[in-house]
Amino acid sequence: MDEIITLDYGSGGKKTSRLIENMIVPAFSNPALEALGDGAILPGAEKLVFSTDSFVVSPLFFPGGDIGKLAVCGTVNDVAVSGGVPKYLSCAFVIEEGFQSEALGRIIESIRKAADKAGVEIVTGDTKVVERGRGDGLYINTAGIGFLKYPGLSPRAMRPGDDVIVSGTLGDHGTAVMLARSAMMSGEIRSDCAALGGLCAAVLGSGGAVRVLRDPTRGGAATTLCEFVEGTALSVELNESALPVRGEVRAACELLGLDPLYCANEGKLLCVVAHEDCGRVLAAMRGTEEGKDAAVIGRVSDRYPGKVVMRTAFGGSRILQKLAGAQLPRIC
Amino acid sequence: MDEIITLDYGSGGKKTSRLIENMIVPAFSNPALEALGDGAILPGAEKLVFSTDSFVVSPLFFPGGDIGKLAVCGTVNDVAVSGGVPKYLSCAFVIEEGFQSEALGRIIESIRKAADKAGVEIVTGDTKVVERGRGDGLYINTAGIGFLKYPGLSPRAMRPGDDVIVSGTLGDHGTAVMLARSAMMSGEIRSDCAALGGLCAAVLGSGGAVRVLRDPTRGGAATTLCEFVEGTALSVELNESALPVRGEVRAACELLGLDPLYCANEGKLLCVVAHEDCGRVLAAMRGTEEGKDAAVIGRVSDRYPGKVVMRTAFGGSRILQKLAGAQLPRIC
Repeated sequence: MDEIITLDYGSGGKKTSRLIENMIVPAFSNPALEALGDGAILPGAEKLVFSTDSFVVSPLFFPGGDIGKLAVCGTVNDVAVSGGVPKYLSCAFVIEEGFQSEALGRIIESIRKAADKAGVEIVTGDTKVVERGRGDGLYINTAGIGFLKYPGLSPRAMRPGDDVIVSGTLGDHGTAVMLARSAMMSGEIRSDCAALGGLCAAVLGSGGAVRVLRDPTRGGAATTLCEFVEGTALSVELNESALPVRGEVRAACELLGLDPLYCANEGKLLCVVAHEDCGRVLAAMRGTEEGKDAAVIGRVSDRYPGKVVMRTAFGGSRILQKLAGAQLPRIC
Repeated sequence: MDEIITLDYGSGGKKTSRLIENMIVPAFSNPALEALGDGAILPGAEKLVFSTDSFVVSPLFFPGGDIGKLAVCGTVNDVAVSGGVPKYLSCAFVIEEGFQSEALGRIIESIRKAADKAGVEIVTGDTKVVERGRGDGLYINTAGIGFLKYPGLSPRAMRPGDDVIVSGTLGDHGTAVMLARSAMMSGEIRSDCAALGGLCAAVLGSGGAVRVLRDPTRGGAATTLCEFVEGTALSVELNESALPVRGEVRAACELLGLDPLYCANEGKLLCVVAHEDCGRVLAAMRGTEEGKDAAVIGRVSDRYPGKVVMRTAFGGSRILQKLAGAQLPRIC
């Protein structure tokens, strides 16, 4: 390998082979990938969950993670919250000419670790190289296949009286990336980037009537909850004083003019559950590493159709809208 | 929709919703995508084929296709040559800030048409926006799932005496894109960009003993054949005078200093087949639109282990190597 990635590594010829065979395949070693065919051949299931995300986060490395870990966790989480058991990932790189091979190696290692931890295999991939000034170091796309285990999860399953649970503190990822970008207070706040397959399995295996799961990434918890009720006869009423937000995240958000409710999370779960099952779901969450700070933050009602309403700590209330613009571009 | 895509369209908030709900979902209308969940829920199968490609072609529009058509055909073809019946695609956009909404609309329409023609559904997707100067208009990633119908296709199944067939003329896509880029002779040569699901089904359903299929994209037919024999005891002996190359492609390649054997194709199939079944496979290919110019171009032997050897029109011979550098960057 050369010290930097040149356009030759995207040619489809010898250097592409070298990159794939020396750096990528050994890291993700499994028979499907090692066959180096155009497609991976895999055991299937009766019902599949299929999801994709492209990752363009800047900077590529931030406290608590990097673009590689994010690319695994983000897609694993989309499969898991859809009721699937995550199984296979594809991984496609768009590399900017001049990118350091060493940094690519570290990111590939991070992908490997995150995939191992999440119990998924990288079974197929692609590598393209674009000229300097046509990318930003590295973009990664992952697509994920899971086997559907818990069908029927949907905002349409929500009922008045249901409880809304969040698995932990809000706004950590968005704030960590924003601070890393500005080099301000960097390192104090870590991204919550984590794969939630285990947490989702705990919640869904608890026996409670779970209506819908979602990982509130871009747009934050507020936007996700707005999407849940949009166009329905239901509302979500949030209790501001119940929202778990780290003190340092709250302080950083005030400094930066951000709202933790609109900041991306990359390792958190929003869960709507039947009121009578709230206790057991909460206990199941708190029994996992990812869900130890889980809290009930609100409930579903029919008082403000289609709206998310926040009861403030001072007894007032305000309507939360979906994120209107780009609070933080390139957060994931 | 605004006239251009701004960073707000990648925020995960209102504008992202507008882009997805107004432009993307209506174009690809199907229940899995319309559910707008984090993952699509789909009927599965016992064995799956899974593949991905990122597309960074420049220019985005070229004679015979555009990045959207390419993104569908490229992944459909990777699934089909692996023995799968292509079923589902994901589609993820990385858009550069300032990109024209109208051009995006045309590309989405092109994706829709290509997917309809190929018989696949776009069931899940993602949209990111990066700042000006951090992309090049639009990059697209597609991942594809197929149901495995023809297992066992592999270069390892090749035997001495097998015939090598190509489904049509070589080098059309690479030459078309290169000319479109230079605005030289533009429009005379069209990309062969096409989905090969039907052609693969015809070949594999012919009853002939098909060893391996591959669509020779980046690196061209020469690189694909080198990959077939690399590290094996087999060789491929090509007959130069049998290679189907359009006159205008040959002329353009001479002008540009390219070799059609190393130019990307996006709608061609290389097929290795048992000698005794060559006639029926050839007939099956020629019975399809995509395979009407199919020709036998060489055979498998054990005379030059691991090598691809070209018998020239003048009776000489030369060894073909895998593409060494970037003959044409960003061809797909």
